[in-house]
Amino acid sequence: MDKGFDDVVVSTRVRLARNIKNLPFPKRLSGQEEIYSVLMKGVKEACDELFETRFYKMCDIDSLLAQSYVEKHLISNDLIKNVNFGALAVNKDEDVAVMINEEDHIREQCITEGFDLDGAYRKLLGVDEKISEKLDIAFDKKLGYLTACPTNLGAAMRASVMVFLPALTMTKKIGSLINELQRLDFTTRGVYGEGSGAQGFMYQISNQATVGKSEEDIIKLVKKTVGSIIEIERKERENLKKTRGVELQDKIMRAFGVLTNCYLIDSGEFMELLGYVKLGVALGYIERDMNKINKLLTLSQPAMLCMLAAKVLQPRDRDKARAALGRKFLEK
Amino acid sequence: MDKGFDDVVVSTRVRLARNIKNLPFPKRLSGQEEIYSVLMKGVKEACDELFETRFYKMCDIDSLLAQSYVEKHLISNDLIKNVNFGALAVNKDEDVAVMINEEDHIREQCITEGFDLDGAYRKLLGVDEKISEKLDIAFDKKLGYLTACPTNLGAAMRASVMVFLPALTMTKKIGSLINELQRLDFTTRGVYGEGSGAQGFMYQISNQATVGKSEEDIIKLVKKTVGSIIEIERKERENLKKTRGVELQDKIMRAFGVLTNCYLIDSGEFMELLGYVKLGVALGYIERDMNKINKLLTLSQPAMLCMLAAKVLQPRDRDKARAALGRKFLEK
Repeated sequence: MDKGFDDVVVSTRVRLARNIKNLPFPKRLSGQEEIYSVLMKGVKEACDELFETRFYKMCDIDSLLAQSYVEKHLISNDLIKNVNFGALAVNKDEDVAVMINEEDHIREQCITEGFDLDGAYRKLLGVDEKISEKLDIAFDKKLGYLTACPTNLGAAMRASVMVFLPALTMTKKIGSLINELQRLDFTTRGVYGEGSGAQGFMYQISNQATVGKSEEDIIKLVKKTVGSIIEIERKERENLKKTRGVELQDKIMRAFGVLTNCYLIDSGEFMELLGYVKLGVALGYIERDMNKINKLLTLSQPAMLCMLAAKVLQPRDRDKARAALGRKFLEK
Repeated sequence: MDKGFDDVVVSTRVRLARNIKNLPFPKRLSGQEEIYSVLMKGVKEACDELFETRFYKMCDIDSLLAQSYVEKHLISNDLIKNVNFGALAVNKDEDVAVMINEEDHIREQCITEGFDLDGAYRKLLGVDEKISEKLDIAFDKKLGYLTACPTNLGAAMRASVMVFLPALTMTKKIGSLINELQRLDFTTRGVYGEGSGAQGFMYQISNQATVGKSEEDIIKLVKKTVGSIIEIERKERENLKKTRGVELQDKIMRAFGVLTNCYLIDSGEFMELLGYVKLGVALGYIERDMNKINKLLTLSQPAMLCMLAAKVLQPRDRDKARAALGRKFLEK
């Protein structure tokens, strides 16, 4: 992980969409059990050659485990819903996931900590090459990779960077930034997927259309754009510190005081306060490991808390467990 | 200080009202400079024989110092307003104050930490005997001591105990307790004088009419009544702990977290949060010295903060100084 950007970038994710030649897309696949087995076999063989890998059919995966993979951004809720033909391969390090029959037949994903588009893409390329050896992937010389949704045609690649933008959020400049990104063909989402608001000042920024662009072009473009956003956010923070230093420090340290002392806290408040604590670490008000704070963001999610407790927790018990986790993780 | 009651009782105050024979009460004293000197001379001689004492005329006392005496409950705002004929004697330990020309010609006061009506009355009796030697005090065999307000006639004594009633406040049972006390001829006030709300869950309970009662009767009655209130509050706390333990601990520890970390805090929020911290100490959730917390209650008041800084502070600077004081005092 490149620590040089950990004041702004949380994680990087690259995703490739692939489909099998002459096969209906997943939404029209009902009744074709045979093809499901072909897909499963190909992905399994490819992954096994690369990593120690765990395989799950969505019809029998433990629902808490599945939800925890969503919270780790390894899989989507749409995959979970496809109990008939959905399947999943996850490597032991949990940085590579292959979804079978989500929107496309195959979606390969690599997620890394920090700002590392090249690293994530390189790792994913290894996976993609193996899978292409095992399965007959649909590719058109003019259109590129064929995908269920036309916006994914071409490189069929989405490169996403999860960024932490507290200063741009507090100053309300985030709105015009999102508009500007839209104009540049980028999508900005709250952290927990499409449509959700930005919790803990976190946004996921990714490229949109990929037709006519090479994978390298996309990586370069996303890298450059996120680089500019990092600069703007940093300037905005310096400005906030200069003009409203005491108010900012007060807000940050109160959040830290609550998180290190509370006994009950819901997910929304936790994310909000942890956002302030994260900013406090970035600005040097609080001495804690940024990586540990990012881990806490994931571990404090509902399914993760149940996984840690090794049982299903009711909301009030999750609020208790979340508070205990926060106190423990933020201890000096 | 008796630590046995410090979970409920903050301080005890006894006050005696005295007036000079055949003299108009302070409100009608204008133009009689001569009598003012007589009063001053008598009080000064009496106090000098007992303590190292500081004397002030209200026309030239430093206004911050005067306000800090109000915050310490040694004098009233009414005394400060009487710039023509008001004067004040305060002993070095700041537990005895004699106000000249407040509502009565002389008001003798003793304030002690904890629950100590006998101690406060004993000390005050020494002061009263000395003053009675020096000045010709108005006393009627049938009515007792003569006072400006008829409710003070008789023993002319008010015995007050400042109590901390968080559980009765949170459960809203305080309302019927105050009504019951009223019926028993007791007055209940918020901490900072008549009419003010109860800040930090603190109430001042004192006897009302004194005609036909001896000083000893009054002390005994107040002691017994406050004793019952202590019992009720303690029971209510145990009940809260049993029925809403986690919620209570969460509320208390959040308050502690904010007070030990914030950088800006106004007086109202500070008092409220310190009330929760005080309860946390009483319930054993927080290990701190109760006496130190009580000191913080006084030191965090506006004039006290200016006295500590040795200059007049604007509201925002007081909020900064108050936050710094809280962090320092609550450090382990």
